[in-house]
Amino acid sequence: AMATEKCFAKGSPAPGPVPKGQLHLYSMRFCPFAQRTRLALNSKGIKYDTININLKEKPEWFLEKNPLGLVPALETSAGEVIYESSITCEYLDEAYPEKKLLPSSPFGKAQQRMLLEHFSKVIPYFYKIPSARRTGEDVSTQEVELKEKFAKLNEHLEKKKTKFFEGDTITMIDYMMWPFFERIEVLELKHCLDHTPELKKWTERMLEDPAVKATMFNMDTHKAFYKSVAEGKPDYDLGL
Amino acid sequence: AMATEKCFAKGSPAPGPVPKGQLHLYSMRFCPFAQRTRLALNSKGIKYDTININLKEKPEWFLEKNPLGLVPALETSAGEVIYESSITCEYLDEAYPEKKLLPSSPFGKAQQRMLLEHFSKVIPYFYKIPSARRTGEDVSTQEVELKEKFAKLNEHLEKKKTKFFEGDTITMIDYMMWPFFERIEVLELKHCLDHTPELKKWTERMLEDPAVKATMFNMDTHKAFYKSVAEGKPDYDLGL
Repeated sequence: AMATEKCFAKGSPAPGPVPKGQLHLYSMRFCPFAQRTRLALNSKGIKYDTININLKEKPEWFLEKNPLGLVPALETSAGEVIYESSITCEYLDEAYPEKKLLPSSPFGKAQQRMLLEHFSKVIPYFYKIPSARRTGEDVSTQEVELKEKFAKLNEHLEKKKTKFFEGDTITMIDYMMWPFFERIEVLELKHCLDHTPELKKWTERMLEDPAVKATMFNMDTHKAFYKSVAEGKPDYDLGL
Repeated sequence: AMATEKCFAKGSPAPGPVPKGQLHLYSMRFCPFAQRTRLALNSKGIKYDTININLKEKPEWFLEKNPLGLVPALETSAGEVIYESSITCEYLDEAYPEKKLLPSSPFGKAQQRMLLEHFSKVIPYFYKIPSARRTGEDVSTQEVELKEKFAKLNEHLEKKKTKFFEGDTITMIDYMMWPFFERIEVLELKHCLDHTPELKKWTERMLEDPAVKATMFNMDTHKAFYKSVAEGKPDYDLGL
């Protein structure tokens, strides 16, 4: 499987069909959205083959399978293609019922979806603030807004008095949020956690999780990748 | 129930708790997102009490239950509050298993969610174009874009050769899209359907559905409501 980890670009030959009972993950090694799916796959112990995609020069065969060209995407042996990170994760939890990451009750599921909806309004700050800094803009207002959003997440943990967002064990919502917190230091946003102790403790607990350990990159690697992005030449195969 | 249909505003007394086994829908009569939930409730034959909210002057008790103040929201007799139209609809389909509107297979569900994700990029045009027209802006580019999006939906129906988006009977995705098409004439966007005959036929089929009939307003009422919105004084109780 290691040999296939280097990314496929425009002009590359298409990989063969997905063998029966197996699963392809179309990914980009440093994509936080693809990491959501990798976390769900790892945590549930689902076997899969990774096919990394050069997002700047997408292979023709990839756009044929997946017209929007998005990663993450899953492909089954029946030729079913599933994209959008949260949709791939819900699909995996339903199609592979071992070690459920979503609650079984309708309200429990709704709670996870509502929290994810809130979190979707936090994500843009992880992009906007670093990119504004790069052009020398003042980011103090945006940082205040991000801190307010973190305060809400902190309040959620404080009220629930649980180790993770929806209980004392990890559930899907923790994995959906984690990839952005893994990058908080390299994005120079770690100080935004200074007044949200429960959220900070949550990030420390997350670091102990086997799926997080299996999918994460260290600071230096993230730093080198972001540098390549900032220079307009994303190094998708960095470190391989 | 008719007496409670007039909207509750700031300063209004809170409605009593939800009786055991019953359901409250917090709504606004002309909101297309709330109509999604009303369609699911009606189609599934679920009994509910509607509590309409004055969205310009929200009642204090409503913001306590539902801090973002969004409609649609559901409240159960256990005090559970569920908001965001697609989350309320999935919740209803899971909590009330009679007459399922979502497929049971994980891939079938993923397909509905992917289509909904696409459609979420169509919705802004239903707001942007009329508001740009009001200020005398040129909307031809935006209309071209909307027509392209309609062409994709038309292509989906053409390929599937089904009467509705995911089969020959109505499923959830049809109800999620319908409220915007119900308003297409009053928003003066009907000509955008001129070159998408399958999509046009779909809108005609939808008009025959009992849940659509039960939740819809006629052109004149929609027109009067939009006029009140454009004048900055939305008439939430129009026609009551």
